Amino acid sequence: MPIITLTTDFGEADHYVACMKGVMLQLCPTAQLVDVTHTIPPHDVVRGAFVLRQIFDYYTEGTIHVVVVDPGVGTTRRLIAASYDGQIILAPDNGLVSLIHRDFALDELRAIANTRIFRQEISSTFHGRDVLAPVAGHLARGMSLVNVGPLIEQLEILNLDPPVPLPNGGIEGQVLYVDHFGNLITNISETELAGAVGSKVDLNVYVGPLRVGPLRTTYGDVSPGEIVSLIGSTGMLEVAINQGNAASQLRASPGTIVVVR
Amino acid sequence: MPIITLTTDFGEADHYVACMKGVMLQLCPTAQLVDVTHTIPPHDVVRGAFVLRQIFDYYTEGTIHVVVVDPGVGTTRRLIAASYDGQIILAPDNGLVSLIHRDFALDELRAIANTRIFRQEISSTFHGRDVLAPVAGHLARGMSLVNVGPLIEQLEILNLDPPVPLPNGGIEGQVLYVDHFGNLITNISETELAGAVGSKVDLNVYVGPLRVGPLRTTYGDVSPGEIVSLIGSTGMLEVAINQGNAASQLRASPGTIVVVR
Amino acid sequence: MPIITLTTDFGEADHYVACMKGVMLQLCPTAQLVDVTHTIPPHDVVRGAFVLRQIFDYYTEGTIHVVVVDPGVGTTRRLIAASYDGQIILAPDNGLVSLIHRDFALDELRAIANTRIFRQEISSTFHGRDVLAPVAGHLARGMSLVNVGPLIEQLEILNLDPPVPLPNGGIEGQVLYVDHFGNLITNISETELAGAVGSKVDLNVYVGPLRVGPLRTTYGDVSPGEIVSLIGSTGMLEVAINQGNAASQLRASPGTIVVVR
Repeated sequence: MPIITLTTDFGEADHYVACMKGVMLQLCPTAQLVDVTHTIPPHDVVRGAFVLRQIFDYYTEGTIHVVVVDPGVGTTRRLIAASYDGQIILAPDNGLVSLIHRDFALDELRAIANTRIFRQEISSTFHGRDVLAPVAGHLARGMSLVNVGPLIEQLEILNLDPPVPLPNGGIEGQVLYVDHFGNLITNISETELAGAVGSKVDLNVYVGPLRVGPLRTTYGDVSPGEIVSLIGSTGMLEVAINQGNAASQLRASPGTIVVVR
Repeated sequence: MPIITLTTDFGEADHYVACMKGVMLQLCPTAQLVDVTHTIPPHDVVRGAFVLRQIFDYYTEGTIHVVVVDPGVGTTRRLIAASYDGQIILAPDNGLVSLIHRDFALDELRAIANTRIFRQEISSTFHGRDVLAPVAGHLARGMSLVNVGPLIEQLEILNLDPPVPLPNGGIEGQVLYVDHFGNLITNISETELAGAVGSKVDLNVYVGPLRVGPLRTTYGDVSPGEIVSLIGSTGMLEVAINQGNAASQLRASPGTIVVVR
Repeated sequence: MPIITLTTDFGEADHYVACMKGVMLQLCPTAQLVDVTHTIPPHDVVRGAFVLRQIFDYYTEGTIHVVVVDPGVGTTRRLIAASYDGQIILAPDNGLVSLIHRDFALDELRAIANTRIFRQEISSTFHGRDVLAPVAGHLARGMSLVNVGPLIEQLEILNLDPPVPLPNGGIEGQVLYVDHFGNLITNISETELAGAVGSKVDLNVYVGPLRVGPLRTTYGDVSPGEIVSLIGSTGMLEVAINQGNAASQLRASPGTIVVVR
């Protein structure tokens, strides 16, 4: 059972996702379909790129990831098929693959161009259904990636600011992602943090002007309602409130500055 | 792997959908279950009918569609099994099948009445679980539609106003559906539009009193934030705001008048 | 195809659930994965316990239920594997299994302790992905429950007030759960009600001070907009508004007192 994951900004109320699945299942009825999320905020490519990066470690060779956050649908932007570590990503060429591209070795990069494997009628506004879904279905049933279209050499990469080491030690980054619990996931990785601050003794985390305190291990290391910072399950520095919502209580959102000293 | 799709107004927070799936999987453990949506607004039969119509083209012979938007559960309303183009729909007889019935050839229409294929205990308030789910499971594992119940001749059809050609050319319809992006999907099909306005030169679309302008091809044909009208992926006239939300910005909703001149 | 159900408070926007599924599918690619719900309110163990109880009757021997509502993740709370009627529940030991434990015979109860079947790196904040998911995957592909960890004798049980028979006949309970429709599901079972009031003639249901009236059979037994009480599909006394939202219209929520006289 080949695995196809779906990550979109289509929401869960409409027919869009089920149309894509119908197209895929016509071509590969035994596919194992995994809904990653369909509630990427409309057109939020950065969030789509983040979610794709987070799941990638937990899937294996042969998995096909279909990612549709596509404000440029129907314009001249390309659709691409990119293979990293034996997993294939099908997506518009708008930066969705940026974080995978940063962290994994590219096997093969192709423009999706072979109209013979598309649906016969192609709308101008729903390439997820008319192009990406049938291509995913063909790949899932064993078609080689070669048949998708020509090799290309470049793809769009998002311009994401990396965290910056501070002159007197420490590091300045920002909130990259707010999750369902209101946890603030930053762009500072455990490795970057260790490189910047060395030993963790006397280390302090700040969200904007607010001093959060030292790094802990888990949420329950502080009392319910208290702020805690830790290396989260994503491997990134994270600020949370134990059993509370850090984003709303600290009024933080993607872009809020986070400093470790 | 037989496909069973589920379209309901049960929401995603409760146990209801998983109870139905458990019943189906007891009877047909290899079913390919597709959640179309569970966020049809409670009791909104028109929206259920629309979503079912939209997905129908992308599924094939043998697919079983279970649709539960059922304000009349436990009253005298019937449950029906209707086959169109080899796909079977199981639903309360309250109009959910209306748009399929308008557009596809009916193979067979039966009342669901054979209690031997229901669950043993049947609640008065959850026929999705106690009747439709086991019937779907039996059909998915190969039971003939004949065993569901007697042939019937009539089914409930929603009274949906079609668009009206205007005396001096042009056509007047209305918003039928607002999607997750706030796009306004009207009840004017590409064919109806072509029949009413012929050539598309100098054509203008109006939402209420607001002039939207001519028909375009895709959202990106206008700048972000600008209004655009086009034939959408549903084949219907659609009004959108590129990377914005037309429903909230134009204060439009199902029933808002749309005119093309 | 072994069935694995997932019930969590992870929401549907993030990568968390898909990470767990990736881990499971690596170990058991043919698993039939059923999302029960991921919108348990964060850390609401009582609601998680209720939902698990509701679905349990509709699944059969061999099903694996993964339940993650885990405010104590990374602290000393245990993870447990509990088998009831041949179905296995994997969950933190915080009361999530309480209602199953009350109503079903325990086959076997183990602490999840065998690190050889965990992921190699175990985060402090996401045991769903690093412990429960791989254990579920191993069990789904046939590993015996013996390999999970040692037998234990006790598990955490929630302290849920049962309904109380009233001196002059009748019973006092409370709202236990509000569903997507705003229906008020109480903690008074059909059996408890029958034991307390005997014959149902002249019976009256009260939500707080409000008299709802006698017990009916289904929502449609009253006119749209009117209040109705009945034995719902969960087997519990339920108060609803036909085609309306009882929770918001009656300002009721879990804990609101419900009396039958």
